[in-house]
Amino acid sequence: MSQDQRTRSRRVILDHIRRAGRIARIDLARASGISQATVTTLTAEMLRQGLIEEVAEGEGKATRRGRPRVDLKLRGDAHLVAGVKIAGRSVSVVVLDFEGTQRAHHKVPLADLSRPPDALGWIVRQAVEAAAGKAGVRLSQLSGVGVGIAGFIDALAGLCHWSPSLDRRNVAFRDLLSRTLALPVFLDNDANLVAMAEQYFGAGRGVTNFVVVTVEAGVGMGIVLGNRLYRGTRGCGAEFGHTKVQLDGALCRCGQRGCLEAYVADYALMREAQILNGGRGVPTIDALLSLARSGDQMAGSILTRATRMFAMGLANIVNIFDPQLIIVAGEQLQSEHLQSDDMLELIRASIVEVDLAPPKVIRHTWDDLMWAQGAGAFALDGVLDLTLKAETDHVA
Amino acid sequence: MSQDQRTRSRRVILDHIRRAGRIARIDLARASGISQATVTTLTAEMLRQGLIEEVAEGEGKATRRGRPRVDLKLRGDAHLVAGVKIAGRSVSVVVLDFEGTQRAHHKVPLADLSRPPDALGWIVRQAVEAAAGKAGVRLSQLSGVGVGIAGFIDALAGLCHWSPSLDRRNVAFRDLLSRTLALPVFLDNDANLVAMAEQYFGAGRGVTNFVVVTVEAGVGMGIVLGNRLYRGTRGCGAEFGHTKVQLDGALCRCGQRGCLEAYVADYALMREAQILNGGRGVPTIDALLSLARSGDQMAGSILTRATRMFAMGLANIVNIFDPQLIIVAGEQLQSEHLQSDDMLELIRASIVEVDLAPPKVIRHTWDDLMWAQGAGAFALDGVLDLTLKAETDHVA
Repeated sequence: MSQDQRTRSRRVILDHIRRAGRIARIDLARASGISQATVTTLTAEMLRQGLIEEVAEGEGKATRRGRPRVDLKLRGDAHLVAGVKIAGRSVSVVVLDFEGTQRAHHKVPLADLSRPPDALGWIVRQAVEAAAGKAGVRLSQLSGVGVGIAGFIDALAGLCHWSPSLDRRNVAFRDLLSRTLALPVFLDNDANLVAMAEQYFGAGRGVTNFVVVTVEAGVGMGIVLGNRLYRGTRGCGAEFGHTKVQLDGALCRCGQRGCLEAYVADYALMREAQILNGGRGVPTIDALLSLARSGDQMAGSILTRATRMFAMGLANIVNIFDPQLIIVAGEQLQSEHLQSDDMLELIRASIVEVDLAPPKVIRHTWDDLMWAQGAGAFALDGVLDLTLKAETDHVA
Repeated sequence: MSQDQRTRSRRVILDHIRRAGRIARIDLARASGISQATVTTLTAEMLRQGLIEEVAEGEGKATRRGRPRVDLKLRGDAHLVAGVKIAGRSVSVVVLDFEGTQRAHHKVPLADLSRPPDALGWIVRQAVEAAAGKAGVRLSQLSGVGVGIAGFIDALAGLCHWSPSLDRRNVAFRDLLSRTLALPVFLDNDANLVAMAEQYFGAGRGVTNFVVVTVEAGVGMGIVLGNRLYRGTRGCGAEFGHTKVQLDGALCRCGQRGCLEAYVADYALMREAQILNGGRGVPTIDALLSLARSGDQMAGSILTRATRMFAMGLANIVNIFDPQLIIVAGEQLQSEHLQSDDMLELIRASIVEVDLAPPKVIRHTWDDLMWAQGAGAFALDGVLDLTLKAETDHVA
């Protein structure tokens, strides 16, 4: 077996153990297609290195053969990582162990929407330090930090082409954070990390092809194909919010016309709402929603168009990807009109008709900590790569 | 090495040889990540089985070490396959050898657009028999037949949900063809097979992520991600022609409103053209194009809208997939307005702006034989799987 193959096999084995939670060696060989002999050799190494550990199934319960069955699981203490979600008005951090169990969390508010990269770097460092402290460790005891941020992010290059949280374009933000924290940092678009959270901890577990659509101030998308996050060639795919739903349509914050966001994001709704109440407008999205609920025709019309445009956009995703599952995720109650029961019917009316059930569409309301968990899952993934790579370099 | 791993390694080796054309064992090991010892063992088996053969590079030219370098290549005679493209008014067939070299081709006209499955099956059989005859072999000497057909096709199940070439829905058309031809048959959507042709023989060679958009009577799409054709969960993805570009827009032949096809397909242009010439309309698409070229404002407006809608649809694909390359393929000169130089500018104006070059968009005009070649490539792929599987079953 070549060194490359060995590293790949170790990775496959660890991924299978992580997905299964607990698994016996024989099932591991069957599931991974790796021979039993190789599984035995490689897992023995991982046991020695403390990456995994043995657990007896069910307190001495015996299998048919009369011997207690021994399962393998990841060893939680092998690594601690932090996951960070940089939102518009806050930074949330979770500390996860190698099994993905949350050890601590911490959240700090942000006064301004955007700031210089250095300043944001120090805010992230302080937040991670505080979270690590709550978990009873020092910052330097973490093995890596995953960071999710809104905007156009090239995850492989660690480059932030544009983000609403930064005051400039084209920032090598991963390296900046890595220097500031003195730790390995993994940076990605926040919607990609939500997809990762759904895959590791949520509704996407065990689903091969799925799409997560996030609705916050903007509209994001994460795509999982063949169990892997799809990032596009330039790291700029999945820009669902900027797909065009109307030729020469409404003006978007990105400067183009007809983007889905320009019809469904908060600012788009507030823009339309300006002529409500005899030209006085409404103060908040909540006020707009209340007005619609109370039967105001114009307020209702604003939400109805947003809902229909959103359904049309989702139907296009179905027509292109044909995924098993679409997860509409968001933390804001104000997106409830985008998660209504009518939505499925509207989508169904716009997708290619075959005599098969359309993909499942589910809603998943969650908070910033879940986004941070996705960033943590991303960090676990990255730390695993680093561990395997270090070991390969050592052997080679 | 487990049997599964062995089959996978053989497959990887054959794929690398096919992609490289000719390759030395040492380069094969390097490119595939499979150890040199395993490459030597497995290629020795394949040589014995006649799947590959050795060729001396350049008539006795010596390498630095003084020995003539020996390359491996696929053995053309190992298998012959047929590739079939069922179009609206014709059936085209090519016979390819295992190296992908065309040995013969044949084309038969079709009087009607659609017919019963049995009847179409016999037409395909006769066309393949004629093509095999031209290649100097009997039908039964072919190892498999790849078939491309327009419509909603589930390639894995061999099911034709709907096709304009058949008079009914939900036909198990692959099995019907396989019985009629008494050969293994591989069935897919024709746009997917164009993507395969581009990957094996065309502009997609060596490109990891690309999208092919086909423009004929309808608009199709084939997606290659990570060097593999992406088919979606239900086999119904990549329905680019039925993505919606306008809420409650123009009526499409599929029964829904606002589909891209309803703005750019021939029927859509002819529908708009009805009021030209003082209500007399135009007899053909060619006449419409001539009229536009001669400066007729209304004819020009029809084509301009089609072009702009097409660009908007393509920009959405870029925003979602971020591919390296988009190939606009079509056999009809009448789609020239969709392949104009303005197109790239229009697309560029609608994609997410980052400081990186946008994906390359190229035009590729070809004929039915190229579609049939894609079907042939699909058959080669399928025959390879069957060969490896048969060998595995034999060993096991």
